[in-house]
Amino acid sequence: MKRKIIAIDMDNVMADVTSQLSGWYYDRTGILVTEEQMAGKNEIAAFPDSGLVRSFLYEPGFFLGLKVMKDSQQVLSEMNKVHDIFIVSAAMEFPNSLPEKYQWLQLHFPFLGWQQFVFCGSKTVIRADYLIDDHLKNLDFFDGNRILFTAPHNQLVKGYTRVNNWLEVADMLL
Amino acid sequence: MKRKIIAIDMDNVMADVTSQLSGWYYDRTGILVTEEQMAGKNEIAAFPDSGLVRSFLYEPGFFLGLKVMKDSQQVLSEMNKVHDIFIVSAAMEFPNSLPEKYQWLQLHFPFLGWQQFVFCGSKTVIRADYLIDDHLKNLDFFDGNRILFTAPHNQLVKGYTRVNNWLEVADMLL
Repeated sequence: MKRKIIAIDMDNVMADVTSQLSGWYYDRTGILVTEEQMAGKNEIAAFPDSGLVRSFLYEPGFFLGLKVMKDSQQVLSEMNKVHDIFIVSAAMEFPNSLPEKYQWLQLHFPFLGWQQFVFCGSKTVIRADYLIDDHLKNLDFFDGNRILFTAPHNQLVKGYTRVNNWLEVADMLL
Repeated sequence: MKRKIIAIDMDNVMADVTSQLSGWYYDRTGILVTEEQMAGKNEIAAFPDSGLVRSFLYEPGFFLGLKVMKDSQQVLSEMNKVHDIFIVSAAMEFPNSLPEKYQWLQLHFPFLGWQQFVFCGSKTVIRADYLIDDHLKNLDFFDGNRILFTAPHNQLVKGYTRVNNWLEVADMLL
C-alpha cells in the first residue's frame, strides 16, 4: 500500500470513553449501564441521568484518565512508520480537555509528535486520504475514504466501511 | 463572490505577536528592536538574545495578552456572515498556549464559535479554498489559494499574493 494521509479520531477510537462513562456513572449512582444497553443510542442519552454524564466531560482528569483502546498503540506505531498519521480530535467543545488530551497523547503514544495533533471544533476542514472515526457527523462531511470505528452508539448503522477493533485497522492499512 | 471556506492564521494575522515580542524584549533588556530591523529575518533570530525571546512564548499570559490586529474584528465579523471561516493556529508547539488562544478568541472575536477553531501542529492537513497566513511553511503545502499576510519577517518575499492589512483582506474577500 502506498503512503497515505490518515486522520484518526481520539475518543472511542484511541481512548476508551465508553467504559469510563459507565464506570464513573456506576461509581456515583450505583447504576450499571452495559454496552448492550447503549447499543444504537447517543453516548450521553444512553444513561438515565444524562445531565450527570455530561458533567463528567467537564471534570478535570476525565480525558487524562481514559484507558487506551486495545492494540491501538502497537498498530499505530507500525502505521506511523509507513503513513502520514494525524490525530484529529473535536476537542473544542470542552476547552479544559485541550491540555489533557495533549498530555494523554504524549503519555500513551510517545512515538507521535505534536506536529501530528489537530484539535478542532469541526472536522469539515480536514484533508486526508482516510478518516477513522466513530461519529457519522464527522465521516459524512469528509472527502476521502470513510472508516467507521465500531462503538456502542453506532452499532446499528449500516452502509459504511466498518472496523471493529485495531487489528482490523491493521489488516486494512498495513 | 460565492461562499468560500477561508482558513485564517492567528499569530501575526489576527494577533500582534511582533509588537509584543519587541515590547517585552525592551522591558527586560532596555534594547529596542524596530520592525525595520526585523525585516526579512526570522521572528526570533531578529533579536540579539534569541533564547530570551523564545522563552517569552512559554510564559503564561503571553498569548492571552496579545493585541488584536487593526481592523481584523470588523472585517472578520463581516466575512463571517458570507463565508465559512476557520481560525487555524499552529499552536501545538506551545501546549500552554492552547487554553490562552481559546480564551483570546472568545474575548476578542465573540461572533466566532468554537466549531470554527482549529489548533494544529502542521497545516498540511487543512482543506479550504483560501489560507491567509504570514508563514511560507504553511502556505507552501496548502492546496487552495494562498494569501501572504505581511509581517516583518516576510517583507522581502516575492511571488505570493500579498495583503498588507485587514482592509486589503476585505477588498479581496468581501
